[in-house]
Amino acid sequence: MAQTTRIAVTPGDGIGPEVVAESIRCLEVLKDKHKLALDWTQFPWPSHAWHQEHGESWPADALVQLQAYDAILLGALGDPGPLHDKDRYLLSDSVSLGPLLEMRKGFDQWVCERPARLLPGARQYLKDDRAKDIDMLVIRENSEGEYVSQGGRLRQGTPDEVATQMEVFTRRATERIIRYGFDQARKRASDRLKEARTRSFRTFEGHICESQVCLITKRNALRYWGDMYTEVFEEIAREYPDVATHHELVDAACMKFVQSPWAFDVVVASNLQGDILTDLAAVLSGGMGVAPSCNLNPSNTDVPSMFEPTHGSAPDIAGQGIADPTAMLFTTARMLEWLGRKDPVLAHAGQELFHAVAADLAEKGTQRRSTREIGDAVRQRLIT
Amino acid sequence: MAQTTRIAVTPGDGIGPEVVAESIRCLEVLKDKHKLALDWTQFPWPSHAWHQEHGESWPADALVQLQAYDAILLGALGDPGPLHDKDRYLLSDSVSLGPLLEMRKGFDQWVCERPARLLPGARQYLKDDRAKDIDMLVIRENSEGEYVSQGGRLRQGTPDEVATQMEVFTRRATERIIRYGFDQARKRASDRLKEARTRSFRTFEGHICESQVCLITKRNALRYWGDMYTEVFEEIAREYPDVATHHELVDAACMKFVQSPWAFDVVVASNLQGDILTDLAAVLSGGMGVAPSCNLNPSNTDVPSMFEPTHGSAPDIAGQGIADPTAMLFTTARMLEWLGRKDPVLAHAGQELFHAVAADLAEKGTQRRSTREIGDAVRQRLIT
Ligand SMILES: CC(C)[C@H](C(=O)O)[C@@H](O)C(=O)O
Ligand SMILES: CC(C)[C@H](C(=O)O)[C@@H](O)C(=O)O
Repeated sequence: MAQTTRIAVTPGDGIGPEVVAESIRCLEVLKDKHKLALDWTQFPWPSHAWHQEHGESWPADALVQLQAYDAILLGALGDPGPLHDKDRYLLSDSVSLGPLLEMRKGFDQWVCERPARLLPGARQYLKDDRAKDIDMLVIRENSEGEYVSQGGRLRQGTPDEVATQMEVFTRRATERIIRYGFDQARKRASDRLKEARTRSFRTFEGHICESQVCLITKRNALRYWGDMYTEVFEEIAREYPDVATHHELVDAACMKFVQSPWAFDVVVASNLQGDILTDLAAVLSGGMGVAPSCNLNPSNTDVPSMFEPTHGSAPDIAGQGIADPTAMLFTTARMLEWLGRKDPVLAHAGQELFHAVAADLAEKGTQRRSTREIGDAVRQRLIT
Repeated sequence: MAQTTRIAVTPGDGIGPEVVAESIRCLEVLKDKHKLALDWTQFPWPSHAWHQEHGESWPADALVQLQAYDAILLGALGDPGPLHDKDRYLLSDSVSLGPLLEMRKGFDQWVCERPARLLPGARQYLKDDRAKDIDMLVIRENSEGEYVSQGGRLRQGTPDEVATQMEVFTRRATERIIRYGFDQARKRASDRLKEARTRSFRTFEGHICESQVCLITKRNALRYWGDMYTEVFEEIAREYPDVATHHELVDAACMKFVQSPWAFDVVVASNLQGDILTDLAAVLSGGMGVAPSCNLNPSNTDVPSMFEPTHGSAPDIAGQGIADPTAMLFTTARMLEWLGRKDPVLAHAGQELFHAVAADLAEKGTQRRSTREIGDAVRQRLIT
């Protein structure tokens, strides 16, 4: 018999607990229906409430505790406190988001994967109807680069102050993320074939490929890592002659995401540039209300990967039961698919959840419904 | 009598010379009509052709020569050479764009200003019709930050390679760019009043202001300069109680540029984040075909400011006479307005050119016309 797969659930702040509750109720249905060997434990941290009581966002051994799980399902972090207190907002934002970055770093979740498809029913921001064909996967380097937190403030607070921030990129991390991108491009092409869908991308030499990887840099201004990224990309590309390659500067990429997002397939970007492009991709696929975010460590099965919706804790609507759980439910589906890499039953449950949420979205669109109503509608689809 | 205002015209590569030619022909009409004390000299550099002949993009004393002028009007830089030669493209891109960054640095053009309005006739990418109300000014710090070119590649080409890139921000440069942003917000509000237009922005305390400055950072991840930017912003904001303030993280800002760009007024961002946001703002206001870019040094009248369209040299359509000169003409109008800060006749000529180009755009939209046809149509409007 398969070992039980264990999930650490960290609902967090604001609307986090509300949307997570719907995920749990869907997981219960799926577990029951498919006799899944699946268990979960809820943690009261990281959260603002925990911070208020203990003076820290989570216990000192939080990472050790979480390591015992196969995945972390996170709601949302960040409680600004009273909304009229501007300073408190500014302050607590960076404190409460700390654990997010610590999990990514602590478990070396070096891939941040954010799929962007404009599903039927989701809000369409672009005028051009080809927006319906948006189907890209933005892969963000999630372990280094602009996010190494090195730097400081010299002569802080004086007119002569100098603030520095170091960006550090290693060839090893560059290679693994670019290779991951090419592997995903192949996988997506073969998944499309199974659904009898094809796409075609032209290589520089004029050949037609079923998939594409677009590398993002700003190598005309940030030369050092831009050149390294480009060289590694060209090296690895040679191993994937079946995948078309492309390169965009980050500023031009943002433009093209708006002008012709349907022309992209897999997009690989650095930590900060990926952060920017994934938010942009999220809005193109309907907004924060539908966008999942997966922080993965594909190379070490001893540490959990972490799954969160791209949206924040939305303190302005928290506690009212009106937050849209769609992104959280898509995120949960993604988690099951990831956990099911070697367990077809789990993977199938993930797909079932995805299709239930997508069907609900297609039927109801962005109609105003309560958190519970949407959760119930999805659950109903899972039961029947 | 007023001293003659002198412009250095650097057409550059690709479609640069073609669109610059239309600007010159318009300048001739305006000079004649208003007896402007205006002169210009064309330079064959910086350009790819010059590079091929001399082994460098421009002469060693280029900056000294240019310093004698009041402004630089630049077409576009970057000639990829034969388009089927991929490697050559990659190489020459960063070489040929060098002079752009050297001018900005050499003349301390510390403001990069890119207005974004969706003018009638321009292409609208967003579905929401409020896109017609887009009217923002993105102000980019143009002298330091991510663009200081410090860093390197350790163990280059080996599996152990580490590439670093340093970001350096000074409080002085931070103060001047933020203060510039607030001044522009005030100026815009007063200009709007003259046209009997008003806008309203709510402050944190609930007051209504006629203008707003939104600061962009990524302070939850790039903490050092993010904190410094935030502190300086809050300090300076106190001197402008009539201007509403706002703060966005760069990733959220990209989302909101797509979701509700009409809610922004003045936006102040760092060099790289500004680069990204200005490209995004450009596409929201109709695309590269209409977007001007102004590299200004407002504090030193002894050095020229530089004006260029946001678009590149578009080698794929160069030499065919089909490039749209609209962005170049808008850029030229901006230049005249800038040069006319203390010369009402020059400023008026700039506005006249702006209105002629805008009227042509409103009438013809994005209809396919040759470079010359568009130039002629605008000239005709100036003559009559
Ligand atoms: C909260 C913040 C630190 C985080 C990031 O920048 O990675 C967020 O924007 C995200 O995309 O997950
Ligand atoms: C060409 C490049 C170096 C430049 C920049 O990044 O500043 C360009 O993108 C721009 O926006 O003017």
